[in-house]
Amino acid sequence: MNEPSILLTDFYQLTMLQAYFDHGLEETAVFEFFVRKLPAKRNFLLAAGLEQVLDYLEGARFSAEELSWLAAGGRFNRRFLDALANWRFTGDVEAMAEGTPFFPGEPILRVVAPLPQGQLVETRIINLLQLQSMVAAKAVRSVLAARGRLLVDFGLRRAHGAEAGLLSARASYLAGFDGTATVLAGQRWGVPLYGTMAHSYIQAHASELEAFENFARSHPAGATFLIDTYDTEAAAAALVELAPRLAADGIPINGVRLDSGDLGDHARQVRRILDAGGLAEVQIFASGNLDEARIARLVADGAPIDGFGVGTRMNTSADTPYLECAYKLQEYAGRPRRKRSEGKATWPGRRQVHRRYGPDGRMAGDTVTVIGDEQPGEALLAPVMRGGERVGTAPPLADLRSATARRLARLPEALRRLELAPLYPVTTSKALRALRRIADESGG
Amino acid sequence: MNEPSILLTDFYQLTMLQAYFDHGLEETAVFEFFVRKLPAKRNFLLAAGLEQVLDYLEGARFSAEELSWLAAGGRFNRRFLDALANWRFTGDVEAMAEGTPFFPGEPILRVVAPLPQGQLVETRIINLLQLQSMVAAKAVRSVLAARGRLLVDFGLRRAHGAEAGLLSARASYLAGFDGTATVLAGQRWGVPLYGTMAHSYIQAHASELEAFENFARSHPAGATFLIDTYDTEAAAAALVELAPRLAADGIPINGVRLDSGDLGDHARQVRRILDAGGLAEVQIFASGNLDEARIARLVADGAPIDGFGVGTRMNTSADTPYLECAYKLQEYAGRPRRKRSEGKATWPGRRQVHRRYGPDGRMAGDTVTVIGDEQPGEALLAPVMRGGERVGTAPPLADLRSATARRLARLPEALRRLELAPLYPVTTSKALRALRRIADESGG
Repeated sequence: MNEPSILLTDFYQLTMLQAYFDHGLEETAVFEFFVRKLPAKRNFLLAAGLEQVLDYLEGARFSAEELSWLAAGGRFNRRFLDALANWRFTGDVEAMAEGTPFFPGEPILRVVAPLPQGQLVETRIINLLQLQSMVAAKAVRSVLAARGRLLVDFGLRRAHGAEAGLLSARASYLAGFDGTATVLAGQRWGVPLYGTMAHSYIQAHASELEAFENFARSHPAGATFLIDTYDTEAAAAALVELAPRLAADGIPINGVRLDSGDLGDHARQVRRILDAGGLAEVQIFASGNLDEARIARLVADGAPIDGFGVGTRMNTSADTPYLECAYKLQEYAGRPRRKRSEGKATWPGRRQVHRRYGPDGRMAGDTVTVIGDEQPGEALLAPVMRGGERVGTAPPLADLRSATARRLARLPEALRRLELAPLYPVTTSKALRALRRIADESGG
Repeated sequence: MNEPSILLTDFYQLTMLQAYFDHGLEETAVFEFFVRKLPAKRNFLLAAGLEQVLDYLEGARFSAEELSWLAAGGRFNRRFLDALANWRFTGDVEAMAEGTPFFPGEPILRVVAPLPQGQLVETRIINLLQLQSMVAAKAVRSVLAARGRLLVDFGLRRAHGAEAGLLSARASYLAGFDGTATVLAGQRWGVPLYGTMAHSYIQAHASELEAFENFARSHPAGATFLIDTYDTEAAAAALVELAPRLAADGIPINGVRLDSGDLGDHARQVRRILDAGGLAEVQIFASGNLDEARIARLVADGAPIDGFGVGTRMNTSADTPYLECAYKLQEYAGRPRRKRSEGKATWPGRRQVHRRYGPDGRMAGDTVTVIGDEQPGEALLAPVMRGGERVGTAPPLADLRSATARRLARLPEALRRLELAPLYPVTTSKALRALRRIADESGG
């Protein structure tokens, strides 16, 4: 899946650009992306999607065909469209590393560019950062709930379209999932691939046993068998019967998958059947409408489940399928700007987030301030693009995932639980409050 | 945005195909897509996404690069991968027309193809049909609530990725929206484009008045002005002041947009200011966290709002962001099949849905039966692909939209309301019940 056409944007970006062009509003603008408020059932968010934003910014161009189509619409003048032919993103970007926990009001990405550039890229930047940050923030809850058990993304089919499927595989892996069923995510980023079989596979055969044996012989390195098509325990018993025949040919049985009914109950019965049949090494994998709450309950109940396939509810962040996020103008031509609309007012200027850690190494509080204002703690936004070009090379996703795990270990314990935690302390610096007064007085 | 790689599928599709290949399971299979149950807050669903499914089926191929990558993974044998090089979809498809209201348990699409073909396409077919059917079923609620007022899709930025943004523009237009802000949907399907300006546009200017005038002069055919950046009523007054200067140059003011605060209240005040200033023709457009419930309330309150921009909640179907849908094996090698897993049992065979209409022309009830069983009423599934090729040509989206409006007019009145209606009668025929007994007896 390649980056879509630059026309995947809001029409108003183009009508605004026409006006900027006509009236010479092309000085430096500063935009920041942030989330306004924490969704219900989240203790923190997880920054994700930066690499896709940088890919987009590096590649964004208008093709001749796109420009002719715009011209045919009659809404733009010729000089402006000619100028669009040379449109490139030449700005700077600073951002939090992917996998950094963040909180409402904290910028996770800043764009500094001539106004028409910073403006045009708004729609796609929001589109990319919201999706992955939202999915990562949802997926990490399953990671925390599973307490080390295997987690695999099964959600492509019910993700919202192709890109949501692909990028939610990426975001969940970043957040700590062990792999995905989405083949393209394996090819694209080396995400480990997992897969078993569908009910239709079993049903196409004359018997379940024949289906199992055929599959095993086609995958002699070992496979995981779906056992709930007809009768879960009978299928487990059939595998016990099949196992010696396969073992004689050196073919192991890696695992079984439960996909319906009371998963904890079936897991216990199946575990007994497998253990009694000499298949103590065979792992039990569960799937079917799982989310972090169900995983936590199964884990708390001591269900003998070794891994979970988590799909729809994670990929769509079903309990909160969007973030109240925005990409706002902070400064134009050197003057701080802020929006004062009712209920949607914003902070002006170029901002930095400083994170302090306690003596136990855990996060102790964040301060949002203006850049240049010295504050204790780790500065979370760092340069990632200069003059339209990436600073350094894209880090491998597996490295981002390890760094994310280290960051998650530093979350206050209360934030690592599924229950709502007390608000993590995020304060606004004196310097930022002073800048807001200046912006208000200057009418910005 | 082109169709993504064929590797955008579940890994198990490929492991199953390896087993089908090795063991010669290549006879004709019948799969059907349906929704298991109606989500909360929906009285009906709306079939959508068929054209994208047919595009996908016509174009699906494995490239040499994809096959080398699969080979390098070491999970598949050479003969199988060589066979994949010639993989084509050569099957038949029958489906409900896009924009047809449908109900749980009713197939909206059937694939009849050699088993490995029907199997591999499962993931992407579900991915495409769920997204658009879900969004269309959500969007149509705004259409019913708006009672003829203008409706524009504003949701690209918070849709789940690129394809969700693009296809939700398509699905909402199909359902009766008047247009979208998503430029690519205009280019792709001729969906009418709407756009105003962002707060950042206003903020970049020294004054709101200058921002308005610049925009107006760049769009002399007329524009819609965003008036809530600082003080909504003051901005409306500024437009009244500006209007004669623009009129002198033949530039009209088409409308204003409200995006925050109490939309009904602001609309009333702004309407008064505009009317008193001789701008009675200027339309008021509202946006900001809208959904069908808020639209219905504004309409019921008599708010003087001429149109609505609806985004996030519609595009993500926020109150129910997925459908309990499935693509199931119904028949293999001439024998009916069905799944009997707990809570997930399905009906076997090739099915047809017959829809009866009452003397008032409204829908009166559906019967799901096996094909060939004569039943009264309109048969809803019709051939759309034969031997891997489309039957006829893709209808223009505007035609599908008109046909959808005609179908929506035939819904029972209770189903056209936002409140939950009594269940629409969908019955299962004697012939289908008999087939289920046969499938059970034969162990299918």
